[in-house]
Amino acid sequence: MKPIRVGVLGAGVVASGVVKVLNRNQQEIRRRAGRGIEVTAVGARSLDKAHAALGRDIEVTTDLEALVVRPDIDIVVELIGGTDRAKSLVLAAIAAGKHVVTANKALLAVHGNEVFAAAHAQGVMVGFEAAVAGGIPIIKALREGLTANRIEWIAGIINGTTNFILSQMRSKGLDFGVVLKEAQRLGYAEADPTFDIEGIDAAHKATIMSAIAFGIPVQFDKAHVEGITPLQAADIRYAEQLGYRIKLLGITKRRDDLHGIELRVHPTLVPAKRLIANVEGAMNAVVVQGDAVGTTLYYGKGAGSEPTASAVVADLVDITRLATADPDHRVPHLAFQPDALADTPILPIEQVITSFYLRLVVADEAGVLARITGILAEHGISIDALLQRESAEGEHQTDVIILTHDTVEGRMAQALAQMQALPTVLAPIVRIRKEELS
Amino acid sequence: MKPIRVGVLGAGVVASGVVKVLNRNQQEIRRRAGRGIEVTAVGARSLDKAHAALGRDIEVTTDLEALVVRPDIDIVVELIGGTDRAKSLVLAAIAAGKHVVTANKALLAVHGNEVFAAAHAQGVMVGFEAAVAGGIPIIKALREGLTANRIEWIAGIINGTTNFILSQMRSKGLDFGVVLKEAQRLGYAEADPTFDIEGIDAAHKATIMSAIAFGIPVQFDKAHVEGITPLQAADIRYAEQLGYRIKLLGITKRRDDLHGIELRVHPTLVPAKRLIANVEGAMNAVVVQGDAVGTTLYYGKGAGSEPTASAVVADLVDITRLATADPDHRVPHLAFQPDALADTPILPIEQVITSFYLRLVVADEAGVLARITGILAEHGISIDALLQRESAEGEHQTDVIILTHDTVEGRMAQALAQMQALPTVLAPIVRIRKEELS
Repeated sequence: MKPIRVGVLGAGVVASGVVKVLNRNQQEIRRRAGRGIEVTAVGARSLDKAHAALGRDIEVTTDLEALVVRPDIDIVVELIGGTDRAKSLVLAAIAAGKHVVTANKALLAVHGNEVFAAAHAQGVMVGFEAAVAGGIPIIKALREGLTANRIEWIAGIINGTTNFILSQMRSKGLDFGVVLKEAQRLGYAEADPTFDIEGIDAAHKATIMSAIAFGIPVQFDKAHVEGITPLQAADIRYAEQLGYRIKLLGITKRRDDLHGIELRVHPTLVPAKRLIANVEGAMNAVVVQGDAVGTTLYYGKGAGSEPTASAVVADLVDITRLATADPDHRVPHLAFQPDALADTPILPIEQVITSFYLRLVVADEAGVLARITGILAEHGISIDALLQRESAEGEHQTDVIILTHDTVEGRMAQALAQMQALPTVLAPIVRIRKEELS
Repeated sequence: MKPIRVGVLGAGVVASGVVKVLNRNQQEIRRRAGRGIEVTAVGARSLDKAHAALGRDIEVTTDLEALVVRPDIDIVVELIGGTDRAKSLVLAAIAAGKHVVTANKALLAVHGNEVFAAAHAQGVMVGFEAAVAGGIPIIKALREGLTANRIEWIAGIINGTTNFILSQMRSKGLDFGVVLKEAQRLGYAEADPTFDIEGIDAAHKATIMSAIAFGIPVQFDKAHVEGITPLQAADIRYAEQLGYRIKLLGITKRRDDLHGIELRVHPTLVPAKRLIANVEGAMNAVVVQGDAVGTTLYYGKGAGSEPTASAVVADLVDITRLATADPDHRVPHLAFQPDALADTPILPIEQVITSFYLRLVVADEAGVLARITGILAEHGISIDALLQRESAEGEHQTDVIILTHDTVEGRMAQALAQMQALPTVLAPIVRIRKEELS
């Protein structure tokens, strides 16, 4: 059979990984797919840079709009990132009847519904394994491997940059700013690290997983997003003393009591004995809780040239197998049939239920603890553990660390406001959410 | 569309899980598959027991041979286990044009080539996600998620019983026999635990993964299999002191130097810091090393009613989607196209390369260590670490623990024979293979 012909948009690290992997493993891939997969042409801004990255033999064009409609191309791989031009190129490719593979989480988290609707109407596939957790086949696991299950929740370390920073902060006891600089020097963080450290990248990925897990449209604008910039070394240390590690988790959870879904990214205390708490450096891991299968975990590299290419090429193989099949034979984009998506709402953060880690800097005087614990009791928030640091001689303040049981976020917000107003509470209260993941 | 109709062979724990999950999640599953999936009839030895396990509403028959050819059944789910009757029933179902889903690793590891050839000839699918690592979608990950990769090796904890026993031996410092009894009492080990503790079950699963990873026929008879029965608490303790844990691993590895493949199951020292070393109790985990993706790991429950049912039902959904598709659109049974399987041989154990943990009980006298290390040096085996226990007062013997670097098994066997023959070596030498998994 004639090889499947691929047009690649972009000539960066992932594109060069795709070209490299398709070349190196072409025999292995043909043995699996039953057909060769070849890169016909690459679209890039600079011909010279593209040739330097991908080799002289490859056809390169700067006219991306022309590339995506070329009749000699079956699949368009979109690797340029961003949401504007990427969107119009992807929609143009779909309109021209091309299947699409993309690693672009921002595009799908924000415009996924439009993209998938267009693809459905045209009868083409959009593969996006590479958009979440890089080389880990988590989209396939959720969409196909766990179809028997009512998914209960997903919690993932889905941003390598922040996990690298948090791992270094913990192991070296350093503050955020210092580690960020080191991460930038080593190439683990970008010059402008905002998307990563503010949790936006993780929220894009959590949004996509949420849609696939629960059969709802992608709704990035409803996600609650907090990054790791406010994290202090002291809290990582205290967490460790209490048997926890702090990870930036993307979490999405079915809440049957409110017929809603939680979707949130924030630093989270996780019991140190959980496997996911031991995922270090730039590695990713996703925990999925299903009602039949129980807990499963998927671990691997979430970024990088060849790990991401691994996911892109797996999508190419899937599409190669099903390219000529009836669309009914394919896996629906969002795991559920397009006409079976639900309108289950994403809950506002006030309705989210978690437990909490609180650190209060308090005056070292009688009655302080009674007032604090009294406020928590008043709001029906029960305490799981309490740690008061012994104040040094001559020091007139100390740290009080409180771990709570599960409570509604809104209730905790009220309690926090009251505690913060106490004259004996001397600094802004640190509050970090905690998940037992059991 | 009319629902897909399933005939289930067997009425045990997995069958009841399948019926339960299909009932409980029928709406969720229909939303995903685009079609309902219904159990039409169950074949079992005892009508009463089957009704007691599955409910009164379900049609039960004792005539399994008739069930598998019934025209009102689309897919046969084989859950009776064993290799004889299961084989003839599965082949009969295939001959009648039924798709098959099976959780039967023994059947596939031993007769897989015949079963898959028959299915290929008939144009039907055989799903077997449940045959390896229960609810973990590892077959899908290997067969579809990692198609871009040249798989380099796989190492898995793929038998829950032995992992439960090893976890208990380590955490409680108990000997094998004591823990086995406890495991039997708790239902983690069967009355006749031979298949589990002797590594046979793990070898069935490793054989299947080996075929899928490297595109070779299943060759269970070539697998090297060692169980955990000889393991002593002392070795688990010494391993821990050296920073290792002992796990029963199923390992398969590409050996380009010899154009062969390693396929083996044996107790293995693994660095304690690896995630897989921290997989405790009856849980399973599989590490896959691919040339593009690097290291990935898949973790979850490897057995039990609903975890196994999760995998069976996922296969039912896959088949439901592709039932009416052209066979070319389906994923090949062994990941590679049937005409693209390789004849790469499984290497004999003598050619396997690993590092080793050795424990020698030696006379506490001058020159002993020199002779032992001399023999290793003679065979070109270099030492990574050495630990000599201080002998207690009045004691005339002591333990010497040696960790070696990688060496060929055959060479180690020669060295061991020579060391064992030394008059100062007072007991059979314990040797456990070690894998860094990096």
